Amino acid sequence: MGKMWGGRFSKPTDSAMERFNASIGFDWQLWAADIRGSIAYAAALERAGLISAQERAALVEGLQAVYAEFECGAYEPRLADEDIHTAVERRLGELIGETARKLHTGRSRNDQVATDTRLYLRDKIGALRAALLALQATIVQRAEEHLDVLMPGYTHLQQAQPLLFSHWLMSYFWMLQRDRERLDELTRRVDVCPLGAGAVAGNALGVDRAALAADLGFSRISENSVDAVSDRDYVAEFLFWATLTQTHLSRLAEDLIIWSSVEFGFVSLDEAFTTGSSLMPQKRNPDSLELLRGKAGRLLGDLVGLLAVLKGLPSAYDKDLQEDKEPLFDAVETMTLSLAVAERVIRTLRVHAEAMAQALADGLLATDLADYLVRKGVAFRRSHELVGMAVRRAEALGIRLRELPLTEFQAISDAFGPDLYDVFDFRHAVERRDVPGGTATDAVRAQIAQAKSVL
Amino acid sequence: MGKMWGGRFSKPTDSAMERFNASIGFDWQLWAADIRGSIAYAAALERAGLISAQERAALVEGLQAVYAEFECGAYEPRLADEDIHTAVERRLGELIGETARKLHTGRSRNDQVATDTRLYLRDKIGALRAALLALQATIVQRAEEHLDVLMPGYTHLQQAQPLLFSHWLMSYFWMLQRDRERLDELTRRVDVCPLGAGAVAGNALGVDRAALAADLGFSRISENSVDAVSDRDYVAEFLFWATLTQTHLSRLAEDLIIWSSVEFGFVSLDEAFTTGSSLMPQKRNPDSLELLRGKAGRLLGDLVGLLAVLKGLPSAYDKDLQEDKEPLFDAVETMTLSLAVAERVIRTLRVHAEAMAQALADGLLATDLADYLVRKGVAFRRSHELVGMAVRRAEALGIRLRELPLTEFQAISDAFGPDLYDVFDFRHAVERRDVPGGTATDAVRAQIAQAKSVL
Amino acid sequence: MGKMWGGRFSKPTDSAMERFNASIGFDWQLWAADIRGSIAYAAALERAGLISAQERAALVEGLQAVYAEFECGAYEPRLADEDIHTAVERRLGELIGETARKLHTGRSRNDQVATDTRLYLRDKIGALRAALLALQATIVQRAEEHLDVLMPGYTHLQQAQPLLFSHWLMSYFWMLQRDRERLDELTRRVDVCPLGAGAVAGNALGVDRAALAADLGFSRISENSVDAVSDRDYVAEFLFWATLTQTHLSRLAEDLIIWSSVEFGFVSLDEAFTTGSSLMPQKRNPDSLELLRGKAGRLLGDLVGLLAVLKGLPSAYDKDLQEDKEPLFDAVETMTLSLAVAERVIRTLRVHAEAMAQALADGLLATDLADYLVRKGVAFRRSHELVGMAVRRAEALGIRLRELPLTEFQAISDAFGPDLYDVFDFRHAVERRDVPGGTATDAVRAQIAQAKSVL
Amino acid sequence: MGKMWGGRFSKPTDSAMERFNASIGFDWQLWAADIRGSIAYAAALERAGLISAQERAALVEGLQAVYAEFECGAYEPRLADEDIHTAVERRLGELIGETARKLHTGRSRNDQVATDTRLYLRDKIGALRAALLALQATIVQRAEEHLDVLMPGYTHLQQAQPLLFSHWLMSYFWMLQRDRERLDELTRRVDVCPLGAGAVAGNALGVDRAALAADLGFSRISENSVDAVSDRDYVAEFLFWATLTQTHLSRLAEDLIIWSSVEFGFVSLDEAFTTGSSLMPQKRNPDSLELLRGKAGRLLGDLVGLLAVLKGLPSAYDKDLQEDKEPLFDAVETMTLSLAVAERVIRTLRVHAEAMAQALADGLLATDLADYLVRKGVAFRRSHELVGMAVRRAEALGIRLRELPLTEFQAISDAFGPDLYDVFDFRHAVERRDVPGGTATDAVRAQIAQAKSVL
Repeated sequence: MGKMWGGRFSKPTDSAMERFNASIGFDWQLWAADIRGSIAYAAALERAGLISAQERAALVEGLQAVYAEFECGAYEPRLADEDIHTAVERRLGELIGETARKLHTGRSRNDQVATDTRLYLRDKIGALRAALLALQATIVQRAEEHLDVLMPGYTHLQQAQPLLFSHWLMSYFWMLQRDRERLDELTRRVDVCPLGAGAVAGNALGVDRAALAADLGFSRISENSVDAVSDRDYVAEFLFWATLTQTHLSRLAEDLIIWSSVEFGFVSLDEAFTTGSSLMPQKRNPDSLELLRGKAGRLLGDLVGLLAVLKGLPSAYDKDLQEDKEPLFDAVETMTLSLAVAERVIRTLRVHAEAMAQALADGLLATDLADYLVRKGVAFRRSHELVGMAVRRAEALGIRLRELPLTEFQAISDAFGPDLYDVFDFRHAVERRDVPGGTATDAVRAQIAQAKSVL
Repeated sequence: MGKMWGGRFSKPTDSAMERFNASIGFDWQLWAADIRGSIAYAAALERAGLISAQERAALVEGLQAVYAEFECGAYEPRLADEDIHTAVERRLGELIGETARKLHTGRSRNDQVATDTRLYLRDKIGALRAALLALQATIVQRAEEHLDVLMPGYTHLQQAQPLLFSHWLMSYFWMLQRDRERLDELTRRVDVCPLGAGAVAGNALGVDRAALAADLGFSRISENSVDAVSDRDYVAEFLFWATLTQTHLSRLAEDLIIWSSVEFGFVSLDEAFTTGSSLMPQKRNPDSLELLRGKAGRLLGDLVGLLAVLKGLPSAYDKDLQEDKEPLFDAVETMTLSLAVAERVIRTLRVHAEAMAQALADGLLATDLADYLVRKGVAFRRSHELVGMAVRRAEALGIRLRELPLTEFQAISDAFGPDLYDVFDFRHAVERRDVPGGTATDAVRAQIAQAKSVL
Repeated sequence: MGKMWGGRFSKPTDSAMERFNASIGFDWQLWAADIRGSIAYAAALERAGLISAQERAALVEGLQAVYAEFECGAYEPRLADEDIHTAVERRLGELIGETARKLHTGRSRNDQVATDTRLYLRDKIGALRAALLALQATIVQRAEEHLDVLMPGYTHLQQAQPLLFSHWLMSYFWMLQRDRERLDELTRRVDVCPLGAGAVAGNALGVDRAALAADLGFSRISENSVDAVSDRDYVAEFLFWATLTQTHLSRLAEDLIIWSSVEFGFVSLDEAFTTGSSLMPQKRNPDSLELLRGKAGRLLGDLVGLLAVLKGLPSAYDKDLQEDKEPLFDAVETMTLSLAVAERVIRTLRVHAEAMAQALADGLLATDLADYLVRKGVAFRRSHELVGMAVRRAEALGIRLRELPLTEFQAISDAFGPDLYDVFDFRHAVERRDVPGGTATDAVRAQIAQAKSVL
Repeated sequence: MGKMWGGRFSKPTDSAMERFNASIGFDWQLWAADIRGSIAYAAALERAGLISAQERAALVEGLQAVYAEFECGAYEPRLADEDIHTAVERRLGELIGETARKLHTGRSRNDQVATDTRLYLRDKIGALRAALLALQATIVQRAEEHLDVLMPGYTHLQQAQPLLFSHWLMSYFWMLQRDRERLDELTRRVDVCPLGAGAVAGNALGVDRAALAADLGFSRISENSVDAVSDRDYVAEFLFWATLTQTHLSRLAEDLIIWSSVEFGFVSLDEAFTTGSSLMPQKRNPDSLELLRGKAGRLLGDLVGLLAVLKGLPSAYDKDLQEDKEPLFDAVETMTLSLAVAERVIRTLRVHAEAMAQALADGLLATDLADYLVRKGVAFRRSHELVGMAVRRAEALGIRLRELPLTEFQAISDAFGPDLYDVFDFRHAVERRDVPGGTATDAVRAQIAQAKSVL
C-alpha cells in the first residue's frame, strides 16, 4: 500500500519533486489529530451504512494501535509516506489489511487536513490560554508586592512623570488581556468542523456531518464545502494573535533590557534567565529578554509568509496551502516557550527600588509646577511656557529645579510664590494622578482589583 | 501662538527636522475627531472646576467655528502647524484669544491623539461594515438568481467535481461573514476612551473620565494610563482585518480574472469595470479585479509596517508611534473603494452558463464512478485505482471516459457493469452532494437561507 | 566540560530558558564551517605564539576527528550543548583533553558564529549559482527547440498580441540573469572574514587577521570589530535574493498553472511533477508549480522575519541575532529544491503548439490593423479609435474581426481599403516586431545568442 | 481628447471604478520623466519616418510648453486624466492640436511607464547617493574629532569591553559603505531602457531602440519585451536598499536614544533635532531619532507591499503593477529626509566624554584579566572560569573588582600575582586591541584613513 493515488499515473514522482512535495517531515505533528479524525470518520461511515459494525471495529482498533505506536515514538517520518494521512493509512493497512482501504471512502485529504489542523490548534490554544493567564496572574502578584515602589515614568525614553512601578507593570496586564480576548474570539472560528466537505463539492455518501462534529467536539460545521477546504483564516488569525502578543512581550523585554543595564540598574534578572559570554568572564546577559524581543520579528515573518501565500490564490484547494503548516507549528512552539519564559522572568525579577528612587529627577515634576501656576490662575499654555523657562534657567545654572531661588522664579513670573517648593514631592505627584487608570496608589489598587476580576 | 511647547527651548527646530517631524500633512484627516474631543474636554474642564461656564462656552463656540472652517475646506495644512492638535488650537486662539490657552490643561497630545484616532476609526468602521454587508447581500442575490447554473469545480486549477455556480459564489459569502465577525469584535476594542490618561501617568486635575467617555460615545475607559497612550493594538487589528478581507477579495478576483479570459469565457465583467489599452484597440482589461488582487499586497505592507514599528518599542509613548496614521488612513481608503468596487463588479457580472456547461469534462465524474464501484462492494482505495486506470485508458485512446467501451472497463475490473454509464450525468453528481454545506441545489438553498438569517 | 561560561554564575539555567536559548537544534548545520574555522584559528594561535606547534597539532588532529564523527552522522544534537561551538569544543575536550581549553583564547562566539555563517553561506551560494545556471541553460535550450511555435501573448490575462512561445520563455531567462548578477554581487559581501573581531573590540592577542582570512579562503577582512560581530546584511541580502528569485519562479509557475488547465491546454507537465488526489481518480495536479508559487510567500516571510529582528537593535551583538539562522537555513534549502524542480519541470514540459495556434483570436491583430491605418496617414490615436469601433461592430455581429465586411469597415472610416485583410496573419504580426528585444524570430534568435554569451 | 482608449467601449467607467483605477493622484510625480521620454520618442518617430521633421518640432515644442506648465505648478491632478501619460497627452493636444495624436504611435503605456519610472528613479538615486556620502563624511569627521574619547562597549546592552567612541561611530560608516555599494550595483539595473518594448511584443514600426536609449541617457536596452514591461525588480531592489539602509539608521538611532537618556547621559542631541511636550514643560525628546528608528518599519512595509504584489502575477503587464509607484515614491521621500536628518543629527551631536569615562566599570576588564592568566600559562577556558569566580566574589563583597584583595584572588588561584592590578587600565585595554579593525587608537586611525580612501 503506497500512495493514496496512482491508478491514473504511468510513472513515478521525480525524486527532487518527491522531497519538494512531501509534508511528512513536519505534518507528522498532526498524528494524534489525524487518527482521532479517522476514528470519528469510521463511525460516520458505519452510520451511513458504508461499512459494517465489524469493519468499523476493525478500523478503530487498528487506528488505536497506530496511535499507540506514534505515542511511544515508534514512528519515524519517511519520504515515501508523503504526508501524515498516507502514513497513518499505510500503517493501518499493514496492521489490519484490506479493511483499511475502506476508511477513505468519500473523504478527501482536503477536508481531512483541514479537520486535523483545527483539532491540533484547538488543543494547543487551550495550553496557550493557560500560559497567558499564568503570566497575567504573575504580573498582578508582582504588582501587588511592589505597590510602594516609585520610579521615573518615561516617554521617548526621557523622564516624564513619576510612576508607581506597579502601574508600569500592570500596563502589560491589559495588553495581555486584549490578547486573551482575541484568543478566545478566534477560538470560535477554529472550532468548526470541515469534515464532510470532501475535495471541494461536499460528501456524496450521506455522512452525518453534525454527528461527526459532535464526535470530534466541534461546536459547528462549516457552511460551504468550497470554503471549508481552502479556509486558512483561522491560521492567519492565530499567527496574527501570536505576533501581536509577542510584540507586547517584546516591549516588556525592551523596557527590562534597558533597565537592567548597569547605567539604569532598576532591575536584575534572576541568573537562571541570563547567560554568560564565551570570552568575557564578567558577563551576565539578558538573553531571555532579547529572545523575547527577537521572536516578535520571527512571528511577523510567519504571519507574512502565510498571508503572502494566500493572496491571489485561486478558489478551493491549491497545493500552496500546504505552506500553512510550518508557520503554524513554529508559532505554537514559539509562543509556548515565550509565555513560559516571560512568566518565570517576571516571577523572579529583582526590583531595585532604591536605584529607581535615586533616578527620580526634578524635571519629572515640571508638569506639577505648571499645574501649580494654573491653580494660581495662569492659563495652562502660559504656565507651560513659564515653567519651561524655569527649567532652562536651572539647567543654565547647572542646578536642580528645586534649587532655583525664588527670585529667579519670580523674575520669570510673579505668579510664583514661596509655596512653589511644595511641588517637589514625587510621592505627592503620583498620588495626584488619581483618576481611574491613573498612577495614584488607590487607582492602581482599583486596577489590580479589576484585573483579578477578569482573571 | 505657535508650537505647543518651546519655553524650555533656546533655538528653533531644524528645517529638515521640521518636515521630518510634522504629521499635519496627513493627520489633518483627524480634524473632526480632534475638535469633537476638545469640545468634550472643555466640558470636563468645567466639570472639574478648572474653567468657568463662560470660558467653556467660549471654547465650544470657538471650536464649532473652527469645525465649520474645516468642513468647508478653508483649512490648508501648513508645516508650522506640526500636527492637527496644534492647528486646531492655533486657529482657536486666533478666533477667541486667551481662553484658548486653557483648553489643554491637564491634557497631553498623547491621550488626545489616541482619542482622536479611536473616534475616527469608530466612524469609518461603521461605513465599512455597511459596505461589507452590501457586498454579502449582492452575493446572496446573485447566488439565488443563478441556482440552475452548473460549472466545473476546480482544485489546483484542474477540473475536480461539478459545482453549482451559486455554491462557488456563496463560498465568498462565508469568508466575508468571518470578516464581519472580526470587524465587530475589534470594534469593541476600538470603543475605549483613553482621554484622561495624560502624557503617561493619568490626569492630575480630577477630570471625570467616565463622563468624558459618555460624551464621546465610548462604551468604556482605558484601565491603565501607560497602556492607554501607547496602545495601537486596535490599529494593528484593523490592518489585519483589512489585509485578510482584501485577501479574500484577491482570491475572488483571481477566479474571475481567469474565468474572464477568452480561453475560459465563463464570465464577463461589465464594461464599466474594465479599461482599455493605449495601444491595442481590442482590449477590455479587468483592471478592477487586478486592483482588488494587488491591493491585498498593499494592505499587507501596511500591516507589516505598523507591526515592525511596534516591535521592541520602549513602553509608553515614543514618537515612532506617529507612523501608525498613514497605514491606517491608507487601509480605510483602500477598503472603502475595494468593497464598493467588488460589490458593483459582482452585481453587474455576466455569467455565461452555456460556456460553463460546455467546459464540463468527464473527468469531473471520476469520483462518482469510484463511488459506483464502492456501491458494488469494492473498497474505496481499490475503486479509486480502478477508475484511475480507466481514465488512463480513455486518455490513451483519445476518447472521453464515457466513450470507453464496457469491454475496456471490464478488462480493468469485472465490478464494472453496463449501469456504470448512468454515472455520466453532471446534474446528478451535483445533487448527490446533499450534505449540509454541499453543492446540491437543496443544500445551497439551505445555505442561502442561512446566509440571509445572518445578514 | 560543560558550558563555555559559568564561573561567575551561582545557579544553573532555568529549564524552559535552556530550551528557549539553545540554538544547537538548528545551528549544528554549521558544524563543518565551525570546525574549519577552528582549525584555522589554531594556526593563528600558534602564529601568535599563544600555543606551541605541538598543541596546535593536537588541536588540529582532534578537530579532524570531530569532523569525521559529524561527517558520518555520529553526532546527535543535545540541549546541554547550547550551540554548535560548544558542542564541538566539548567533544574536542573529550578527545584530546586539556589542550582543547586553549582553543578559544582571544576568540568570542560573536566573531566565531559570524565566520561560520559566512563560510556556510559561501559554500551554499556556489551550489545555488550552478543551479541557477542550469535552469537558465534549460530555458535557452527549450526556447531554441520551439522557435516556430506561435501563441497568444497576454496582458491582464487577456489576449494582447501574438508572441513566439520562445520569446515568452526567454523573458524568464533575463529575470534569472538579474538574479545571477545579484547573487554574484552579494557574494562579494559574504566573502569577508570577521574572525579576530573578538566579542566587540577586536583581538587583543595579536592574531594575524590577514593570514586567518587567507587560510579560510576569504578575500577580505572586516574593517570594524563592532560592525563585524553584528553585521547580518549579507543574510538579509541573501534572503532578499531568494525572495525575488522565487518571485520570478512564482510568476513562471502561475503562467504554467493557468496554461495547463484543461481550458487553456497550452502545456502539460510531465507526470513526474504532478501528483494525484486521494479522492478523485482522474486528477493530475501541478503541485510542483503550486509549490514554486507558494514558496515565494514563505521566503518573503523569512526575509521579513530577519529584517524585523534587525530593526532598532542596539549596536554590536545582541542575542536577537540568533534568529538569523533559521530563515537562512530555510532559504538555502528552499532555493536548492526550487531551482532543481523548476529546471526539471521546464526540461520535461510538453508544449502543445496546436492548442496555442487554435487559441489565436483576431483581436490579437487589432494593433496591426491600427498600424495599417497609420500607414494610410491616419493619426495613431484616431486609428486606435476606428479599429476599436470595428472590434465593437464585429462583436455586436458575433463574427470574427476578419469576417467583418469591407462595407462595414468603410462605414467606420474610408481609410480602410480591401488590403486591410492582409493584416490578418499572426505570423506576419510576429515578424513585424523585429526591434531588439521584440518577438520576431530573428530578434529572438539574437536574444538567444546573447543569452548564450552570458551563460 | 479624453482617454487614450474608448473606441471599443459602449459605456463610461463606473465612478467608484474611476477613482479606484486612476493613478494620476500619485503618478503626476513622473511628469518630468514622462515629458522627457516623449520628447525622445518624437525623435524616434521622425527617425523611423513615421512623422515629419515639422511634426516632430511641433511635438517637442508642445511638450516643452507642457513641461513649463508643470514646472511652475500650473497643473492640478484631475481624476479624468487617469494617469500622467494621459494628462500630458491631453494637454499637448490642447496646445498643438491634431499632431499630438501621432505621438503614441507604436508606443504603449506599458513601455512608457516603465521608462518614466526608471528615469525618475535614476535621478533620485543621484541625490540619495550624495546624501549617503555626506552622512559618511560627517561620521568620519566626528570620529576624527573624538579619537581620545573612551567609552564602555556593549553587547546585549551590558558592558563588555572598553571602546573608543570613534570606533563605535565608525562601525556605522561601514554599514553605510555597504549601502552605497548596493546602491551603485542596483543603479546598473535601473539604467536600462525599456522603450520600444510596446505593450508586450516589441515595437512593430522600426523605432531605433539604441538611439532612444542614448537620447535618454540609458546605458543599455532591455533584452526582452515581455520582461521589459513587467520587470519591477529595480523597484524591489531599491525598496530593499532603502529598508536595509534605514535599518542601519534605526540601530544608530536606538544607540543614541538610549545614550541620551538622563541615566546614560553619554550624548545630547542638538535642540534643533528634539521637540517638546504639549503637557510636560521640561521635555526635550529625541523625536528625530525615534522617527529614524520607526521609518525602518515603514520602509519594510513598502518592501513587503511590493513583493506581495509581484508574487504569483501572470507574466507581462497586469494592472497590479500600478501598486509599485506609491511605495517607491514613499521610499524616495523617506530616505531623502532620513539621510539629511541623520547627517545633521550626527554633525551637531554633543558627546559627553566625562560621563562616558565615569560609566566605565571594572567588569569591562575581566577579559584582560583572563588574558593576564593566559600569559601566566593558564589555559583560556580555565582562566575564564577563575576570573568569573573573582567577579562573583567581588560582587558578593559589594566592591569593585580592582578592590578585591590579592589574598582573595589567590584563594581562587595562585596564578594570580600582585601584577594583576596593572590590568585595571581602560586606556591600556583599548590599545591592546590593535589588530586591523580593532579599537586601538592606531587601528581606528588606519580605519579612518581607509574610510577616507573609499569616500
